[in-house]
Amino acid sequence: MAWARLTLMIAAGWLGLTSALAQESPMPDDIAWKLIEIGRAVDSDKTAAIYAPLQEKEPYQDVKVQRDVKYGPAERNLLDVFTPEQSGAPRPVLIFVHGGAFIGGNKRRTPDSPFYDNIMLWAVRHGSIGVNITYRLAPKFPWPAGVEDVASAVQWVAANAAALGGDPARVFLMGHSAGAIHVATYVAHPAFHKVPGGGLAGAILVSGIYDLTATPLGDQEMAYFGIDPSRFKERSSLSGLQASALPLMIVSAELDLPRFVEQFDLLKQAACKRASGCARAVMLPQHSHMSEVYSINTADDRLTREIAEFMQQSR
Amino acid sequence: MAWARLTLMIAAGWLGLTSALAQESPMPDDIAWKLIEIGRAVDSDKTAAIYAPLQEKEPYQDVKVQRDVKYGPAERNLLDVFTPEQSGAPRPVLIFVHGGAFIGGNKRRTPDSPFYDNIMLWAVRHGSIGVNITYRLAPKFPWPAGVEDVASAVQWVAANAAALGGDPARVFLMGHSAGAIHVATYVAHPAFHKVPGGGLAGAILVSGIYDLTATPLGDQEMAYFGIDPSRFKERSSLSGLQASALPLMIVSAELDLPRFVEQFDLLKQAACKRASGCARAVMLPQHSHMSEVYSINTADDRLTREIAEFMQQSR
Repeated sequence: MAWARLTLMIAAGWLGLTSALAQESPMPDDIAWKLIEIGRAVDSDKTAAIYAPLQEKEPYQDVKVQRDVKYGPAERNLLDVFTPEQSGAPRPVLIFVHGGAFIGGNKRRTPDSPFYDNIMLWAVRHGSIGVNITYRLAPKFPWPAGVEDVASAVQWVAANAAALGGDPARVFLMGHSAGAIHVATYVAHPAFHKVPGGGLAGAILVSGIYDLTATPLGDQEMAYFGIDPSRFKERSSLSGLQASALPLMIVSAELDLPRFVEQFDLLKQAACKRASGCARAVMLPQHSHMSEVYSINTADDRLTREIAEFMQQSR
Repeated sequence: MAWARLTLMIAAGWLGLTSALAQESPMPDDIAWKLIEIGRAVDSDKTAAIYAPLQEKEPYQDVKVQRDVKYGPAERNLLDVFTPEQSGAPRPVLIFVHGGAFIGGNKRRTPDSPFYDNIMLWAVRHGSIGVNITYRLAPKFPWPAGVEDVASAVQWVAANAAALGGDPARVFLMGHSAGAIHVATYVAHPAFHKVPGGGLAGAILVSGIYDLTATPLGDQEMAYFGIDPSRFKERSSLSGLQASALPLMIVSAELDLPRFVEQFDLLKQAACKRASGCARAVMLPQHSHMSEVYSINTADDRLTREIAEFMQQSR
């Protein structure tokens, strides 16, 4: 065991992780080591196995869940709504858009998975209403199906927020991985908006790709964006995000794949050229591509404290 | 003759022209009547015949003209540059993008035409540098060839303005008819920008279409935008213009085709919802779709006075 630990410490050094052994981290030590063991990889199954035991089980206390509400005509135009049992003053709304490399993923990993109910529960337990959406996938539904579905979901929220106890003036759109790319596309390409002005108070982009010309695209990304490189610039979101005045929060993780870290840096720099000011940029120590979202609603609140502050300040 | 005049007055009343007989108009009376006779039509030849005698002839006094400068690899990626013979302090740059229903038109109607040299001469005579561009045409080069070429021309100006005596921080992009649509697309879709931030100090949109879903498109427009109506919303510029913070000036004419007047109203309303404020909106009395641009650099300075003020205030 001591040898294994030493090996991992060497690996951590090799990965350049300055904070892997961060003191006073809210991440349990054993989880930190397991994430280093997984390394810079997208391993949903292994990462889910680490975090599932820390998450709430159904039925969720004091939270009302409406599953599979239709927000559009397509089979996958479905969303789950999480609201408090007790109603009160109108709350902000947090819409979450899952990842899955454009060709997979879902608002819930499996019929009994805690992911991504965990993000919705955090939202409700911290004063918001949660809306968890899924959307059409490539290759059957290529560009721009994803952003069109996001636009329809935002339109649904604009129309239904008040009735759910939400405040239509405080709608935040958060996406992870491919979901962050759909969210970024929505913000950057107002032509897709179905709500005049876009209907958002802010956007939260967790580990996305914003400049399709700066990173070689994989087969799955080309299943969505197409294989014609001459279209990549116009389908990117970097320029549009820079032109937008919407409050932005961008996130990546220390153990994220290098391409996501590169894109985080690109967007961070571009956003700072905006007249409306820089984005709130958060680089999460110790975390990886999947753990950054699977850890939401655990005691490791380093990301969610930032999200809460962002939503508080962007109203 | 009295009978003809009476018939025209009845026609004017029928067209709803309240200002056709405006007192103290800088438009000569006989031209006002000829334009009413042409009516709400796009008649380039007849309108050019009216205005050509009022325009300067080559060689132009105190103005240096460089013709057919290449700004990109395509055959039609050409521009003419108009600068003062005497150089001085850096000047604003006015780029003009001609119309022609996406399938025709040119920066110069014919090899000896005064149009659109007239716009360039006005620019130089009023303290600016003029850049007159042409671009690829449909159906051979459909969407987004036009906006791509506009982006390349803006990039060329950004790189060459200083050497020409221009101020890269005061570049204004003006388009007429299909040209206004390419300019609007450029402003509304930052993904096409080749200069970070777009490189403009303002845009002047003369009789364009901004919401492709609000007006039935003709064959020529569909040669460029395609025949699939499900793409029209995302290829429109209305939402993006509303999201943009760029100073905008929009123009239409009293005798313009109803669709251009409708679109002028749509954009005027949308622009007023911007945090950065309304557009400068000018509805030109007595003028028609072609006369509004063919009259530039004559004594009828009702449009150019507004352009000069817009450029002065948007620096």
